[in-house]
Amino acid sequence: MTLEGKQLIGQSAVAANGAAINAINPATGETLSPAYAAGGKAEVDQACELAWAAFGTYRETGLEARARFLETIADEIEAIGDALIERGVAESGLPQARLQGERGRTCGQLRLFASVVRAGEWLDVRIDPALPEREPMPRVDLRQRHIGLGPVAVFGASNFPLAFSVAGGDTASALAAGCPVVVKAHSAHPGTSELVGRAVQRAVAKCNLPEGVFSLIYGSGREVGQGLVRDARIKAVGFTGSRSGGTALMQAAQERPEPIPVYAEMSSINPVFLLPEALKSRAKELGDAFVGSLNMGAGQFCTNPGLVIAQQGEGLEAFLDAAGEAVKGAQAHTMLTPGIHEAYTQGVEGLTQSRHAREVARGPAGDGPNTCQVGLFVAKAADFLSDEALQAEVFGATSLVIECADQAEVARVAEHLEGQLTATLQMDDGDLDAARGLLPILERRAGRVMANGWPTGVEVCHAMVHGGPYPATSDSRTTSVGSAAIHRFLRPVCYQNLPQGLLPEALRDGNPEGVSRLVDGKREA
Amino acid sequence: MTLEGKQLIGQSAVAANGAAINAINPATGETLSPAYAAGGKAEVDQACELAWAAFGTYRETGLEARARFLETIADEIEAIGDALIERGVAESGLPQARLQGERGRTCGQLRLFASVVRAGEWLDVRIDPALPEREPMPRVDLRQRHIGLGPVAVFGASNFPLAFSVAGGDTASALAAGCPVVVKAHSAHPGTSELVGRAVQRAVAKCNLPEGVFSLIYGSGREVGQGLVRDARIKAVGFTGSRSGGTALMQAAQERPEPIPVYAEMSSINPVFLLPEALKSRAKELGDAFVGSLNMGAGQFCTNPGLVIAQQGEGLEAFLDAAGEAVKGAQAHTMLTPGIHEAYTQGVEGLTQSRHAREVARGPAGDGPNTCQVGLFVAKAADFLSDEALQAEVFGATSLVIECADQAEVARVAEHLEGQLTATLQMDDGDLDAARGLLPILERRAGRVMANGWPTGVEVCHAMVHGGPYPATSDSRTTSVGSAAIHRFLRPVCYQNLPQGLLPEALRDGNPEGVSRLVDGKREA
Repeated sequence: MTLEGKQLIGQSAVAANGAAINAINPATGETLSPAYAAGGKAEVDQACELAWAAFGTYRETGLEARARFLETIADEIEAIGDALIERGVAESGLPQARLQGERGRTCGQLRLFASVVRAGEWLDVRIDPALPEREPMPRVDLRQRHIGLGPVAVFGASNFPLAFSVAGGDTASALAAGCPVVVKAHSAHPGTSELVGRAVQRAVAKCNLPEGVFSLIYGSGREVGQGLVRDARIKAVGFTGSRSGGTALMQAAQERPEPIPVYAEMSSINPVFLLPEALKSRAKELGDAFVGSLNMGAGQFCTNPGLVIAQQGEGLEAFLDAAGEAVKGAQAHTMLTPGIHEAYTQGVEGLTQSRHAREVARGPAGDGPNTCQVGLFVAKAADFLSDEALQAEVFGATSLVIECADQAEVARVAEHLEGQLTATLQMDDGDLDAARGLLPILERRAGRVMANGWPTGVEVCHAMVHGGPYPATSDSRTTSVGSAAIHRFLRPVCYQNLPQGLLPEALRDGNPEGVSRLVDGKREA
Repeated sequence: MTLEGKQLIGQSAVAANGAAINAINPATGETLSPAYAAGGKAEVDQACELAWAAFGTYRETGLEARARFLETIADEIEAIGDALIERGVAESGLPQARLQGERGRTCGQLRLFASVVRAGEWLDVRIDPALPEREPMPRVDLRQRHIGLGPVAVFGASNFPLAFSVAGGDTASALAAGCPVVVKAHSAHPGTSELVGRAVQRAVAKCNLPEGVFSLIYGSGREVGQGLVRDARIKAVGFTGSRSGGTALMQAAQERPEPIPVYAEMSSINPVFLLPEALKSRAKELGDAFVGSLNMGAGQFCTNPGLVIAQQGEGLEAFLDAAGEAVKGAQAHTMLTPGIHEAYTQGVEGLTQSRHAREVARGPAGDGPNTCQVGLFVAKAADFLSDEALQAEVFGATSLVIECADQAEVARVAEHLEGQLTATLQMDDGDLDAARGLLPILERRAGRVMANGWPTGVEVCHAMVHGGPYPATSDSRTTSVGSAAIHRFLRPVCYQNLPQGLLPEALRDGNPEGVSRLVDGKREA
């Protein structure tokens, strides 16, 4: 399949005339063809017009039809075959196996949302039947369901060219909720985006859906990104990226005549707490495993363990020795883009220059142009508590270990943290009381709390929360990974005293769609 | 019981030293005692400090204990007896029967939330058990529940001195979610607020809860209101009031270092569509019933029918004749405050001066100082579509009828509307197709769509949606009335691989709390 370098607006491929966007192979520095001429106002307008026109039909697709559409997207992505993996490797510098896994996750989450759509719990159907005899006032018939918010703008993420880009988690959950999607492609992987975008286009056509259900635009954050968020026809935003990028979108969304929700997943340093008994029994093992998690994907995961917190002493010394040794042997992986590599280098430089952080070890430099030299630093808790710069995310495989005088100081550090996606406890049986003391703090600070694992590796399932208090995300009430993500793009509507013929199917007497309903406060299967 | 005029901070009654706040009896103009010295920074700080200290304990109260607390508040409010109704009448000008009904609703919704807490569906428990044998990667044990966001600032509403004030819907739903509440009393009914506030204080003490679970502060919107919203320990806001007030709080919440959700219920004109067959068969009946809804409570309901839309012709003429006659005989009720009366007078004056609106009828002037003279105006659809001023809410018993050339213009008017709390269809069997054409537009525009009723009268139940797109509310994804309101103050947390002893009860093996759980995507009772 030949890449054409065009905007995908509905079922059309449209040549725009903005500045050329070319992917760069970060492993070689090579510029990749084709060039994607950036879109602007006109393309945003066309895509939003089509999305708005499609919304009325698409949000009323039946559960089965909508589920099949999601499954068809997955089928079409798989049908691309090796070309998708090859292009993804070339544009991201990520290893082939990682992109194969990511493709599996992408298709898996589309199919998970298909099953969620079919089950229909997301409709949250509630029926309070009329009580004409009630005193002092009769009750009228009231029925509730959820409907899609409207067209959603999705921003492709640099670090997940498949699972959080064109047909990734935000797109899958928005489509599942009945919302058309306009994607702004990430400029780092335009070819991968085109391949996936065309797969979605084909699925739209095969399922006989209105073409505006999906569009894909290439362009700058300023013109296309801000343009989408400010367009009156866009009703919600899904974003994964930097804190500055996310907060700019939040502000633009609030400045609209009609403010809209922004789901931005932004910044997290994912603290790992090494509790005393765990450190005593397995410091070396922890040090090795920690560096494995830290350097996975060149540390370019939102859940990368960027902060380790422990009480000083022999156990922590042993951990630092082991981790330092592991860092010295850690391969320097290629980073996603020259820009990300540059920002990483500056972030590490900031730690090197900090009068509060001390270098424990650096990994070997890499061979290629944009490799990530692993870094490990250490600082005193008192300095961490007073120096906000130490809490800034360094996107990449560098982490900071905080030495605390005692468990009380560990708790103070926990309490001082900004909102996080994850918080991790490394604990043995003897650490149960210490863990119990930290847990209430961590629950307030993070969307996911784990024991004896590492934060990298996010399962796509029903119980997952990939979210958390600001600045981890813009909205702690939701998750961007897992089936609960569908709720981000829904709102409730109540129907009072409507004739059966006007009611949506899910609300009609006899429950023709067979969905779970809360009737007079009682759950019906 | 003697009113003391003090701030209720936790279990204390504290004398503040700001400007005196006195209620005014709007029916007589009389200034009521005692004076409430306004609180400021110090009182906000104390209340937030206590609320924050209480949060950890309060959010982990068991389902039964929390439910009993809500029921105890209801019991304590009822135990105040007639004194509450008398003071409410004096401070609001509302009739005794209305306040008795409102007390019933207030206590009823506290008890509804108690039943919701006990049922435990709000926890949204999801369990994805470990799959150690899964290929290519095992799955770890993942469990999700919802926890309270943190302390909530609630703003008492002028138009519901009981049901949307100190222990009203926002307070009940926040307490149900496990969030301590700091209420800013509405300055129009400080005595009513004190009586209810002391009832909540007693309930806190009787239930042995930490005192910071509830505080009540009197003061200005600028000092106390903005002070609360900007306090780092406040994590969400509930507000019912004007559009300018609500948007100011939204902005303050966004400007915080950590932005927080604001649930502001602000402005709605609640369009009523009179469809042709209904107009043909029962124009006079509709005109009478409409004015009854319009003038209920002097038109001071958020769901007051401020806009009527119909196709011109004999039916509409007959409706206008009947409604005009009814207006001429409509009693002028006392409004809530001199300020609201003044704003109403200005709003009506605006319609009188508008070159697009024509007066159909005015009701008789009232006897007292702050009475609401009912008003009915009419305008052409073309003018309504071009003149945004005609869409502004006039808070009180005045409504505007829009004459459309045909049903296509009716649809254009519907499409032109801002977000609304409600939209109403008056329809006969022959109007089914016309209604079917409007319904998709109204679903996008309103939180509640009804047939053959009037928007005033909001049932507190499971299926109710008292919400809607901006500017009806700041957040269309929720409701402020009904049991689903609890979800506004919750966020999900995922627990990965935690030992049983660390897990919250609702997530433990064996389901000790007996709540509904989604296990591996399947609903367990």
